[in-house]
Amino acid sequence: MATLRPLEKDEMAPEARAVIDEIKAARGVDDVNNFWKALAHQPANLRRIWDGLKQVMSPGELDPVVKEMLYIAVSAANNCDYCVHSHTASARAKGMTPGQYAELLAIVAMASQTNALANALKVPVDEEFLVGGPRSGRPEPAARSD
Amino acid sequence: MATLRPLEKDEMAPEARAVIDEIKAARGVDDVNNFWKALAHQPANLRRIWDGLKQVMSPGELDPVVKEMLYIAVSAANNCDYCVHSHTASARAKGMTPGQYAELLAIVAMASQTNALANALKVPVDEEFLVGGPRSGRPEPAARSD
Amino acid sequence: MATLRPLEKDEMAPEARAVIDEIKAARGVDDVNNFWKALAHQPANLRRIWDGLKQVMSPGELDPVVKEMLYIAVSAANNCDYCVHSHTASARAKGMTPGQYAELLAIVAMASQTNALANALKVPVDEEFLVGGPRSGRPEPAARSD
Amino acid sequence: MATLRPLEKDEMAPEARAVIDEIKAARGVDDVNNFWKALAHQPANLRRIWDGLKQVMSPGELDPVVKEMLYIAVSAANNCDYCVHSHTASARAKGMTPGQYAELLAIVAMASQTNALANALKVPVDEEFLVGGPRSGRPEPAARSD
Amino acid sequence: MATLRPLEKDEMAPEARAVIDEIKAARGVDDVNNFWKALAHQPANLRRIWDGLKQVMSPGELDPVVKEMLYIAVSAANNCDYCVHSHTASARAKGMTPGQYAELLAIVAMASQTNALANALKVPVDEEFLVGGPRSGRPEPAARSD
Amino acid sequence: MATLRPLEKDEMAPEARAVIDEIKAARGVDDVNNFWKALAHQPANLRRIWDGLKQVMSPGELDPVVKEMLYIAVSAANNCDYCVHSHTASARAKGMTPGQYAELLAIVAMASQTNALANALKVPVDEEFLVGGPRSGRPEPAARSD
Repeated sequence: MATLRPLEKDEMAPEARAVIDEIKAARGVDDVNNFWKALAHQPANLRRIWDGLKQVMSPGELDPVVKEMLYIAVSAANNCDYCVHSHTASARAKGMTPGQYAELLAIVAMASQTNALANALKVPVDEEFLVGGPRSGRPEPAARSD
Repeated sequence: MATLRPLEKDEMAPEARAVIDEIKAARGVDDVNNFWKALAHQPANLRRIWDGLKQVMSPGELDPVVKEMLYIAVSAANNCDYCVHSHTASARAKGMTPGQYAELLAIVAMASQTNALANALKVPVDEEFLVGGPRSGRPEPAARSD
Repeated sequence: MATLRPLEKDEMAPEARAVIDEIKAARGVDDVNNFWKALAHQPANLRRIWDGLKQVMSPGELDPVVKEMLYIAVSAANNCDYCVHSHTASARAKGMTPGQYAELLAIVAMASQTNALANALKVPVDEEFLVGGPRSGRPEPAARSD
Repeated sequence: MATLRPLEKDEMAPEARAVIDEIKAARGVDDVNNFWKALAHQPANLRRIWDGLKQVMSPGELDPVVKEMLYIAVSAANNCDYCVHSHTASARAKGMTPGQYAELLAIVAMASQTNALANALKVPVDEEFLVGGPRSGRPEPAARSD
Repeated sequence: MATLRPLEKDEMAPEARAVIDEIKAARGVDDVNNFWKALAHQPANLRRIWDGLKQVMSPGELDPVVKEMLYIAVSAANNCDYCVHSHTASARAKGMTPGQYAELLAIVAMASQTNALANALKVPVDEEFLVGGPRSGRPEPAARSD
Repeated sequence: MATLRPLEKDEMAPEARAVIDEIKAARGVDDVNNFWKALAHQPANLRRIWDGLKQVMSPGELDPVVKEMLYIAVSAANNCDYCVHSHTASARAKGMTPGQYAELLAIVAMASQTNALANALKVPVDEEFLVGGPRSGRPEPAARSD
């Protein structure tokens, strides 16, 4: 499979090789996974995606395991085969317990169920859930959230 | 909108009214939101969904705010208008900070981006991400995770 | 809303008006719904979609109500606001009972739930579910199914 | 593949084994398919999903073959590889004819096409399709549909 | 895999064989790809899909490579494994350059990212983006666009 | 609607205001659309998304109108209400003709249809569509595509 073959390091353009070296250093690994090797055909995409991912997944208010679990949840909902595998492995490496994984899957399943129901019923959104917006006079929780 | 009008309590069948009363008691609220009032047309669905949701969202190894954030992540990926609004409101009510919300949205956005890339590239899954399965001899993290 | 304003009949090109007249005649109605009026900007699309829909929804081995219910199921899963509303109305007009609708929604919800779980778990497909395909020697149910 | 290896019976916790035994008895089979064996790592999820599925797919107003066809329609729209395979096999086992399958696929395809069009055009929903809701005075089809 | 085994020519009904011969002639190839061989079980679907595809992908105002790139974009967003592979191959055969492919993937990724953000934020659509529709007095770009 | 109210300029943090000023300057407009005003609550997200979008949509090998049309295609497939409206408006402003728009919608519709069919049939990918990957000896089109 794959529409772009994962590249080996000596096949990459210098700009791509530089990003791959950054990923290895940041993660303390000897080799990167196939996603990066496939993206290495396109140095500008490789650079932008890595820089963005590094920023988004860096330490913040959320626990690193929680960040990986959120990544799994989105990847499962988007049905990304590769991402589900890679981020489930990452979450486990960062300490996700079997019990946390069971709770995560329970929520992914339940949310998909109620999402489908609400989308099929087209339930009107309750007024009290709306914040801001041109037709609401309610205060929003905070003017700044970053 | 809506394909089933949200019902008022005196229009509900007794089996539906009983579930609605349980929801009010469990949440300590005077009234339930439209999702439940629309589902009240179908008492068996209302009962099954409420019982499942109550079980899935009950205290466990994950923090209640994290549970709501996972729910938002799935609902955003599935693009459920109603669920995004209701669970963002719930997460805030349970203490999600503006900074946590910013990190959540960053992950939802970034994951959607790499999901799309991996799905467009059809990157082959690395061997080290696979556990179990008929073609893998690798040990899995745990035989039981619930 | 809308990226193409629903057209009134006197604004349509003759090729579009001809299709609109066919829809009215086929359905025995005085006016068509907004979907067709918006598509009327693009006579070739309008013609192709109407001809296809007429063929697909015409009497066959499946009951007309079942056909509409399948349409609702797909539209809910694809979260098409317009289509959920229009096909729920059609199904009701063709005789879908409240009990059938409750069972439909239960299946839409349950399938979305197990879909999400199987996609998150990446469960390997059992050999006995596979028919045909280059790696299977199993007979398929029938050489022709139309 | 798989993020949780399908378990064999002697690897399961007693609560999981009990559910697996119920599934075998209910279906009259010697072994269950991989979905259940993978879920068996998480007894609470296994129990909730099986109980829900059993209830939803039990005899009702809809024919069992129709129920499986609705399940296929949702699974195809959600692109669940595993579920498409397992429920297509189930529908055939319950009597879905090749002609019915052809009509099902025709509807799945056509609905996906008009869903995409309506979502791209953002066609405003016609007033006559709306029932209930705060901005509609129209009667809804029935106060109770379960 | 596959729920319908790709058929060889001598297994097809005459109506299916006729369509397959048309595809070969139109494309100047000796054999068709698996999609058509699987659809050949269902001659009516095969006919309708081929006739539609031929019309949609025929020369028009858009360049043939652009048409294939749009097809890839939709297929990636819908996560169709088969279609991503087949249309990426077609786009390359019609002249898509590596640089164009890199730009295509960048847009698929970026759009998926901002789609997810807008869906999570539920940003109200700006008045100036709306054309037509019952609540807008703005002129639309053109009464006819086909 | 909205889970974060679009901010006015005097409500924004300085880092957010700086990005908003860049967007206005780059686009030569007096005000930005709601997407940016809602993101302005989260300056880090606002900065990352704007920088990425500016890079991805800048002049390259693809025509600016084609870039916007690809954006529409993905947004329609992902069913992003806001993005469909904003990028359809952008594509028109950059010169998309009614005829090009009709062809775009035809492809979005047709691709969604064949995507659904291939996903429901689970057609095995033809060997000739595969490039690279561990199980293929075929050369890929180019070692570098950026």
